[in-house]
Amino acid sequence: MATAVAGPEIERLIQLLARLPGLGPRSARRAALHLIKKRDALMTPLASALQVAIDKIEVCKSCGNIDTRNPCTVCTDPRRDPSIIVVVADVADLWALERASATNGRYHVLGATLSPLDGVGPDDLTIDALVARAHDPAVSEIILALNATVDGQTTAHYVTDLLQEAGVKVTRLAHGVPVGGELDYLDEGTLSAAMRQRTLF
Amino acid sequence: MATAVAGPEIERLIQLLARLPGLGPRSARRAALHLIKKRDALMTPLASALQVAIDKIEVCKSCGNIDTRNPCTVCTDPRRDPSIIVVVADVADLWALERASATNGRYHVLGATLSPLDGVGPDDLTIDALVARAHDPAVSEIILALNATVDGQTTAHYVTDLLQEAGVKVTRLAHGVPVGGELDYLDEGTLSAAMRQRTLF
Repeated sequence: MATAVAGPEIERLIQLLARLPGLGPRSARRAALHLIKKRDALMTPLASALQVAIDKIEVCKSCGNIDTRNPCTVCTDPRRDPSIIVVVADVADLWALERASATNGRYHVLGATLSPLDGVGPDDLTIDALVARAHDPAVSEIILALNATVDGQTTAHYVTDLLQEAGVKVTRLAHGVPVGGELDYLDEGTLSAAMRQRTLF
Repeated sequence: MATAVAGPEIERLIQLLARLPGLGPRSARRAALHLIKKRDALMTPLASALQVAIDKIEVCKSCGNIDTRNPCTVCTDPRRDPSIIVVVADVADLWALERASATNGRYHVLGATLSPLDGVGPDDLTIDALVARAHDPAVSEIILALNATVDGQTTAHYVTDLLQEAGVKVTRLAHGVPVGGELDYLDEGTLSAAMRQRTLF
């Protein structure tokens, strides 16, 4: 019924918007109406921004980041320390670390974490490229910035084994109390880890 | 910092997505990544669907609905009863009534409800066009399908006054217990209205 009213073009727009994470069928309908009402202020700019992204965005052949340049801005930035490679599972993690200005090193995006249940094996990750980069004499440290989940830690162990012969230092992010966190609400695993890895004050 | 990493094109896409209702800055970033990862399956179709919408969608000159035809599919449908005009505030309300197949009449979209605090006066609504349509001899009933809010009911009263001289029957939606609703959770106003307007079982 709704198709007959709004026309197939609008229905198609709604269906595509509903496939974005965070939008369901109902909010996609609201978003489509909002776009149609703000044709010049929002819909036209969004359409052209999407077209620009389609035309220009590439996956960096060195680190796996996405950018309009290849190699990406991070890889080509001369102020970045070439001796450090920060290994992340996903571009979203790279962005999160960049927002925090957490590191001055370069990155390596694995593309996923090992997850046998989901059928993600070592060949689906860019581990070979990482091992090749680790053999570069300029690289002295690999920082594993992977999720502190079972999949993330499994991947970290797997990668560490393969990096043995490269002769680089392999480190991982610290576990501990999140800044602003309250001890009372933390799980036992985090508290034990924070206690074990306590530092001088 | 994030701008320097992802490039201005991606940042612009994120900013535009963040202006959609239901998406904030963080979910817009997730949506942008999702789009970039699914370039062929989602980003390209979405860009072309937006372009089609920009090129084709118009506001119906008769009822104010949005459609790729003008007059819209509802207005030109010969199976629709021309004697009934259902007055709604917004196209979203029209779509909601159509999804429910609630009426066989035609529509009139006011565009908003009267709201002095927000600076929305009678001239911002398509009330003149509604009064003109009501004078058509073929029209015998105007159904006010406006929100049961203060603004909606104010608008309903205002429109009713202007429709006096057109000599048509003016009705409004029933107030009462929502289907599937529990009495215990309903407010007093709804319960009183439902009791007053009780019908034979």
